[in-house]
Amino acid sequence: MSEATPDDRYRLITRRLQEVLGGDIVKTLLVQGKTPKCYWGTAPTGRPHVGYFVPLTKIADFLRADVEVKILLADIHAFLDNMKAPLELVGHRTKYYKFVLLAVFESLGIPTSRLTFIEGSSYQLTKEYNLDNYRLCATVTEHDAKKAGAEVVKQVESPLLSGLLYPGLQALDEQYLDVDFQFGGVDQRKIFTFAELYLPRLGYAKRAHLMNAMVPGLAGGKMSSSDPDSKIDFLDPPDAVRRKIKKAFCEEGNVTDNGVLAFVEAVLIPISELRLERAASTANGSAVSLANGDGSKDEGAQKPFVFDGAPPGTVFSVSRDEKYGGPLHFSSYDALREAFETRQVHPKDLKNVVADALVSLLSPIRKRFEESKEWQEVTERAYPSPVPEKKKKKEKVYHPPPPGKGRNANVATTHPAANATASTGQTDDPPLSSTAETGSTNAN
Amino acid sequence: MSEATPDDRYRLITRRLQEVLGGDIVKTLLVQGKTPKCYWGTAPTGRPHVGYFVPLTKIADFLRADVEVKILLADIHAFLDNMKAPLELVGHRTKYYKFVLLAVFESLGIPTSRLTFIEGSSYQLTKEYNLDNYRLCATVTEHDAKKAGAEVVKQVESPLLSGLLYPGLQALDEQYLDVDFQFGGVDQRKIFTFAELYLPRLGYAKRAHLMNAMVPGLAGGKMSSSDPDSKIDFLDPPDAVRRKIKKAFCEEGNVTDNGVLAFVEAVLIPISELRLERAASTANGSAVSLANGDGSKDEGAQKPFVFDGAPPGTVFSVSRDEKYGGPLHFSSYDALREAFETRQVHPKDLKNVVADALVSLLSPIRKRFEESKEWQEVTERAYPSPVPEKKKKKEKVYHPPPPGKGRNANVATTHPAANATASTGQTDDPPLSSTAETGSTNAN
Repeated sequence: MSEATPDDRYRLITRRLQEVLGGDIVKTLLVQGKTPKCYWGTAPTGRPHVGYFVPLTKIADFLRADVEVKILLADIHAFLDNMKAPLELVGHRTKYYKFVLLAVFESLGIPTSRLTFIEGSSYQLTKEYNLDNYRLCATVTEHDAKKAGAEVVKQVESPLLSGLLYPGLQALDEQYLDVDFQFGGVDQRKIFTFAELYLPRLGYAKRAHLMNAMVPGLAGGKMSSSDPDSKIDFLDPPDAVRRKIKKAFCEEGNVTDNGVLAFVEAVLIPISELRLERAASTANGSAVSLANGDGSKDEGAQKPFVFDGAPPGTVFSVSRDEKYGGPLHFSSYDALREAFETRQVHPKDLKNVVADALVSLLSPIRKRFEESKEWQEVTERAYPSPVPEKKKKKEKVYHPPPPGKGRNANVATTHPAANATASTGQTDDPPLSSTAETGSTNAN
Repeated sequence: MSEATPDDRYRLITRRLQEVLGGDIVKTLLVQGKTPKCYWGTAPTGRPHVGYFVPLTKIADFLRADVEVKILLADIHAFLDNMKAPLELVGHRTKYYKFVLLAVFESLGIPTSRLTFIEGSSYQLTKEYNLDNYRLCATVTEHDAKKAGAEVVKQVESPLLSGLLYPGLQALDEQYLDVDFQFGGVDQRKIFTFAELYLPRLGYAKRAHLMNAMVPGLAGGKMSSSDPDSKIDFLDPPDAVRRKIKKAFCEEGNVTDNGVLAFVEAVLIPISELRLERAASTANGSAVSLANGDGSKDEGAQKPFVFDGAPPGTVFSVSRDEKYGGPLHFSSYDALREAFETRQVHPKDLKNVVADALVSLLSPIRKRFEESKEWQEVTERAYPSPVPEKKKKKEKVYHPPPPGKGRNANVATTHPAANATASTGQTDDPPLSSTAETGSTNAN
């Protein structure tokens, strides 16, 4: 990182974000040659789905800019979200999340030496934290707490008290995780401004807040959250990925409500660009100016999503039948967007190329899973296969379903007062927050 | 206590209460020969005033019935009520409260071997308690928490979050203090029924709840809470006691809004009866069937509030000028009440006799204070004399006020969202709860 200027690093940290609050805090640290620290939180509830690529792609930028990234695995929140899941089960899910998230960064060739995972239970039950929580509750009005959670805590007729506590706890996490900024979806904005207002009242520093835009779910369309095919699991095999993307809502010419297109913008093009930059720096023999890691050595498929023979500057290619004019190449997301809007790109063609890209992204993750006996065991403990109950009544011998069958992810349910620690930035299925617009989150 | 039957003990435990919820829980323990355990909470904020005699007189019944009494000194709550008072100051106030409360029981000759003081900070910041608090918050609706605190938490325009937490914390205290019942004023009723509803939802036992009637303040009249003379301190000298009672609202014939009369009912007659019972058992040479202690030996003034020569059965005497018919003797509170209502007892005569009784009750407490250097030092630390600020502007030499001068009690202010741990049962000045009807509590 020594070759990258503070400006380079700041640009990388803040690019593609929808909003930055308190950017000067980060800039000052970079100018001083210090390592900014950030946190992003997720509650280990249901199986994480590929929507997590959205925040993780942005976190990859932080890591490349040499930011110290702390991923808060909010196990206490996960436990409170669904108290039917005992703490032990949450413990297994926490391990499962670590396996998946780490595998994603490694499969992208992102260096993880500055990445740490912290479990909420490691500090959220301490004397100091709880006294601060009480102090905060004696400072914060009901009104402000409710307002802070309005977009993230599910608005129901009989809201639980916990929904009012979460904004304060999330503010305290910034202090106790000792970070300079918090990252999350822009749906967290009110939580973030709440933290900026109240932390200083407890005598703590105000932190910066970096926000991703909200991205609709990849496989889900409107009203599709009850459809089990609306979420793609990181471990889904290629045929499942292709089937789910085929069913996704992706209307010809419609660029505003299009999860497939949004995934290209938020995940595929950034990854493609990362790979192009990496290839360029290797080809030039130039010093790797940003921390690109050496994943290319490990992961064979570190190819940009660009076809061979594409013109220079292409960041994304879409195949198209020769009779319709052959493949299309785009030098930016805006170009792709325009082509889709003007119906030069057909939904079927877009879906095909996105499915190909996603299959190639998931391939090394699945490979890691298949090679790790520990991960496999953790998975069975974290999301045990449901025991079919009806069979018992017939007094028949129980035949377990073949491996990989059965929708075990549905074990995780979502609590109305789901916590508000952070979101993927996906409007359709934020992993942590029960937003008002969707009734089903986390359960894959 | 072995001589007292379970029925005797139950009668003593529940007499003069306005309401008992779950009395069977207590009765069953007594029949089984077990020692019931109870708790009463108070937040060590401002200097406790003689209104505390109301709950303490009832607690004396518990102790005499061999109940294990735990007095929760809610220091965390006191700290949160007024975060300008640092925890260190609250620590001194906690010590001050212990000195006063213990001195009251001892001055009444009540055995204190079954009495313990527990500081909230000793368990309210532990991992287990806080996880239970989170669990409770993920179970309790905002609506139920608000309803529970409606009578005890001050209803203001911008209520603080802490006001919603207190009912749950008070419920958890029953579990963590390991008691069978909680005692408080009937203003706590909604908090108590909240605890009965929610503790079992966490898997904990439902407790019984014993409630004192609400008693108007002794020296305060309506709208008098801004008057510094509306509170009588346990350490007030006789002339201050007499002056304050002289100013108290006590209207001829008015028995419904009469703090002086209410004090006779809730404090003076019970104490008088206790002393009469004790004298009778000593005179008869009979076994002390209820734990009366041996305070009579220590405290010279353990005389009932009955004049020499009063007819047998008298529990309270009122002096009256011979020209109006001479002294009056009452065998019950109802008899006194009726006499006051029919104007046979003049307010001036009632005030005089109440002042005499109170001076005699406070005399041994003052004596203990004067004999204890430690208590005196704690008092100066807990309620330091205010430093006059105006002098500084004039750049004059600072002359400290003479010892004993200056209203140092005013250091303690009351927070709008005062906690709801328990109240004295005095409507005019509950020591813990900021009720809706009074703006000034705790500050003496």
